[in-house]
Amino acid sequence: MSTLRIGMAQVDLTVGDFDRNVELVLRRVGEAAEAGAQLVVFPEMTLTGYMPEDLVLRRSFREASRQALTRTAATLAEAGYGDIAVVVGYLDSDCGARNAAAFVQNGEVVARYFKYHLPTYGVFDEDRYFVPGTELVVIRFGGVDVALTICEDVWQDGGPFTAAAAAEVGLLLNINGSPYERNKDDIRFPLVARRAREAGAPVVYVNQVGGQDELVFDGDSFVVDAGGRLLARAPQYAEGMFYLDLEVAPAVSNATPVVGDLRVRRVDAPLPPRALPAAADLPEVGIAERLVDEEEVWRALVTGTRDYARKNGFASVVLGLSGGIDSAVVAAIAADALGGDAVHGVGMPSAYSSDHSRSDAADLARRVGAHYQVVEVEAMVRAFVHALKLTGLAEENVQARVRGTTLMGLSNQHGHLVLATGNKSELAVGYSTIYGDAVGGFAPIKDVPKSLVWRLARWRNDDAVSRGHTPPIPENSISKPPSAELRPGQLDSDSLPDYELLDAVLLRYVDADAGFADLVAEGFDPALVTRVAHLVDAAEWKRRQYPPGPKISYKAFGKDRRLPITNRWRESRAAR
Amino acid sequence: MSTLRIGMAQVDLTVGDFDRNVELVLRRVGEAAEAGAQLVVFPEMTLTGYMPEDLVLRRSFREASRQALTRTAATLAEAGYGDIAVVVGYLDSDCGARNAAAFVQNGEVVARYFKYHLPTYGVFDEDRYFVPGTELVVIRFGGVDVALTICEDVWQDGGPFTAAAAAEVGLLLNINGSPYERNKDDIRFPLVARRAREAGAPVVYVNQVGGQDELVFDGDSFVVDAGGRLLARAPQYAEGMFYLDLEVAPAVSNATPVVGDLRVRRVDAPLPPRALPAAADLPEVGIAERLVDEEEVWRALVTGTRDYARKNGFASVVLGLSGGIDSAVVAAIAADALGGDAVHGVGMPSAYSSDHSRSDAADLARRVGAHYQVVEVEAMVRAFVHALKLTGLAEENVQARVRGTTLMGLSNQHGHLVLATGNKSELAVGYSTIYGDAVGGFAPIKDVPKSLVWRLARWRNDDAVSRGHTPPIPENSISKPPSAELRPGQLDSDSLPDYELLDAVLLRYVDADAGFADLVAEGFDPALVTRVAHLVDAAEWKRRQYPPGPKISYKAFGKDRRLPITNRWRESRAAR
Repeated sequence: MSTLRIGMAQVDLTVGDFDRNVELVLRRVGEAAEAGAQLVVFPEMTLTGYMPEDLVLRRSFREASRQALTRTAATLAEAGYGDIAVVVGYLDSDCGARNAAAFVQNGEVVARYFKYHLPTYGVFDEDRYFVPGTELVVIRFGGVDVALTICEDVWQDGGPFTAAAAAEVGLLLNINGSPYERNKDDIRFPLVARRAREAGAPVVYVNQVGGQDELVFDGDSFVVDAGGRLLARAPQYAEGMFYLDLEVAPAVSNATPVVGDLRVRRVDAPLPPRALPAAADLPEVGIAERLVDEEEVWRALVTGTRDYARKNGFASVVLGLSGGIDSAVVAAIAADALGGDAVHGVGMPSAYSSDHSRSDAADLARRVGAHYQVVEVEAMVRAFVHALKLTGLAEENVQARVRGTTLMGLSNQHGHLVLATGNKSELAVGYSTIYGDAVGGFAPIKDVPKSLVWRLARWRNDDAVSRGHTPPIPENSISKPPSAELRPGQLDSDSLPDYELLDAVLLRYVDADAGFADLVAEGFDPALVTRVAHLVDAAEWKRRQYPPGPKISYKAFGKDRRLPITNRWRESRAAR
Repeated sequence: MSTLRIGMAQVDLTVGDFDRNVELVLRRVGEAAEAGAQLVVFPEMTLTGYMPEDLVLRRSFREASRQALTRTAATLAEAGYGDIAVVVGYLDSDCGARNAAAFVQNGEVVARYFKYHLPTYGVFDEDRYFVPGTELVVIRFGGVDVALTICEDVWQDGGPFTAAAAAEVGLLLNINGSPYERNKDDIRFPLVARRAREAGAPVVYVNQVGGQDELVFDGDSFVVDAGGRLLARAPQYAEGMFYLDLEVAPAVSNATPVVGDLRVRRVDAPLPPRALPAAADLPEVGIAERLVDEEEVWRALVTGTRDYARKNGFASVVLGLSGGIDSAVVAAIAADALGGDAVHGVGMPSAYSSDHSRSDAADLARRVGAHYQVVEVEAMVRAFVHALKLTGLAEENVQARVRGTTLMGLSNQHGHLVLATGNKSELAVGYSTIYGDAVGGFAPIKDVPKSLVWRLARWRNDDAVSRGHTPPIPENSISKPPSAELRPGQLDSDSLPDYELLDAVLLRYVDADAGFADLVAEGFDPALVTRVAHLVDAAEWKRRQYPPGPKISYKAFGKDRRLPITNRWRESRAAR
């Protein structure tokens, strides 16, 4: 056995910003050189950022990606890192667009691998964009056979890992743009461990961190040995370089087997591994502990919000503070993401707002260090109601829309990003006002069911207390019964089932595509299921105009779930 | 040669409404029986409607589709049409979801064919949903070998048409859900003619009509003989049964060749063709004339608007009438779609509205027979501007948002569908106010470039004159320079290039994904290209919250074009 010093670059990329991404590679390889790394591995689509979606269809974009790769190789060599082996993801063009990984050394692109398994489900549309690869490329580097694979290659049976086993490689690299999803790590790690055992070689799994529109990447890069045993694991959400000295078996085969439609191709690295530095002390990553569920989700929301603001050029946010739990949690997320000083809360009480709404909103702003102002909206609301003779629901909605117009006015005047404060349960059943509370550029808790909103609030407060800080969310906002306060004495429970029950139905109906008959068989009341399913089905048009928000569940409302608006399917009629 | 009397069912389906779709099949086969048809062919996904998108992922939905097929077969036989051969599209489940066609006769599902080529580009995501078929099914019916194919099967080389040639079939059916797109028929017809020659057999091409969210189906069903000669063509946008007596060659082979990964399977129809009626007179469809480009587009917009309203349960629409060309054209489309009495125009003049804006709006309403009211919005605008201290763009936008809130108030109070009046050029460059003029459930001219809006207005007026009707669009709305009237003396030309020039750039940059270098090489001014590309790139977040509208171009803003919002790619930086 020999040892390779490997650096995992768990980095935050920016879609389309080739200059920044190339610069980031150079900088991180520089750090890795200091640490004596011999092989540095970056995530999927490093140079383009992931996912570039329809930018892939632009010839100029594909060309820029190829040029960025050439530039990366040259710049690394010029900077004196030519003997470090660097693996970067990029977009190639070769009989069609390719999701590609390059092995770079000595200023050259030594080998290119094209992703074989292309995911086309959930948020992924890779069959739309890419032509699958037909070769597994194996690079002999320092006497070790190293195979490149990309993300989905590890998720599906057959293909690259099978070919790697046949080629008897000594090390597999798997570079990822694998979005966060609750409990995904429970699947991801055992799967990679199994692939390592199948291939009979260690696997280095590198994932990106950061937010990209609806997607949040949590990092969670790790290494398993040939027996599937965990050797190293980087902390979630932390951007950085993580190192370990990995024992790898020397090359034993020169065979170039063909497995299914995948051919093994062998390439020699031009240079031996960079010499290890005299001082042998390496800050090895060790095995980082996993975050508890609430913290994992909280940090996904903070990361998603921070990066959406930052990458779109916003330094500050504005949101309505109603005194309720949703806006309180969104404000606390925003303060954690951008600092309290970047958060501008606006109280917009109407005739139906209770006194505690006003005081709770002000209390929250104080706690998170946010700016706070009150805008009296009653005059505008009355003007609309009077001019248009609005009653009932139309009158309720106009209050929400006056608030939306107020927030957008402040946004346009001061350059803040507007945050929408709706949660997943509301969105599911259409309990929101389009162009009212649905106004915003980003919606931090869009994918968080109401029952989890409460849990997150309690967790965040407890966590603050345990660190000796002020709990950000007023207790009153957590404990009072939820209300939209759009008419006197209104409570959510007038219109909706109890949230715990509602969320249980939604988890099955929305996230799992369970049918009416399934839900009834599971013990849910048929009338309740019918009611919820009708509400969900009828609200699709509203959801389509809702701002994006960080995905944390298996099925978020967004790229994950694509339904026709014009759709007369009614789940409860399915049972015949 | 023998003769088959074929009925093409060019029908309008409703996604998810199995009861209605099954009923429609029964009714149309009833009509076809009267006409003596022996074989009746329905479009792709007849029973589910097309496209069902993620409904396909619901087991209950797939099950309902299979049950609908069984019910269709049984009901047809009970109604006395058991000897008519009927081909319907549906969703099957067989080792995964299948885009399927069934050959039904004698109350039985005689054969099932699963679509082989699955489109995954543009608006199509079929690799996300379906498993491709592995068999070409050939039914011997009345001594003739009939092969079933579905839509994309005709667009790609190899596969079913090649296998059909090898099996020496006498007739090919191709059932479609092929959305309208300008000039698509220039490609569609020669392509099908070529496939007929390749297969050496006539092809019956049946497409649906009607609107489904962003998609409009124009029908355009037709038949070509084995030499690719056009025998019959149904009129565009007309729902109905279209017949012809087709000469077909008798079966000559019992071979079951395997072509690539596609196996030919042969099945016998249980009954001979229904006897022709004594009276031999058949109203054959003949070859319908093609519509001119403007009429084709106009009818697509009218069809899309009519079906979005109707299928979503709206009997009436409301829209703002500014006196400008866009709202005038949208009002005329709505009146053509739903009748003038179903159209509610609202004038919402502000301090910056000119006198002619008011009179042109009223004139338009009179011409198209729409209701018209004026709502004074100045008081609400002033209240916002004063309370929030808005200036500049923030002040301009609040006017548009007060109008949006007004329209939504009227919609909520009276149950009208709000129509947004933005055009494709505005949407492209972000020249619209989110939650302002972008408010609406449907946006009829969302995919119509401004220069085409004018052409459509002139065509519609000329067409009215040629029929002795009142031209719907006031001449003044067509001829005056466009202005948003959000500040004194404002003109679109203050902020935007000339629309003819802008549209020329957009056609290349948006529809064709041409790059900066391409456009400059084509003679466009580099500064103009940079400016337009920057505007387009920066407006993606706004477009994502825009209502759906009928697609008429190769790349509409919608399902067609999927870009990250967080995206630092700047086209003009690509040239290095």
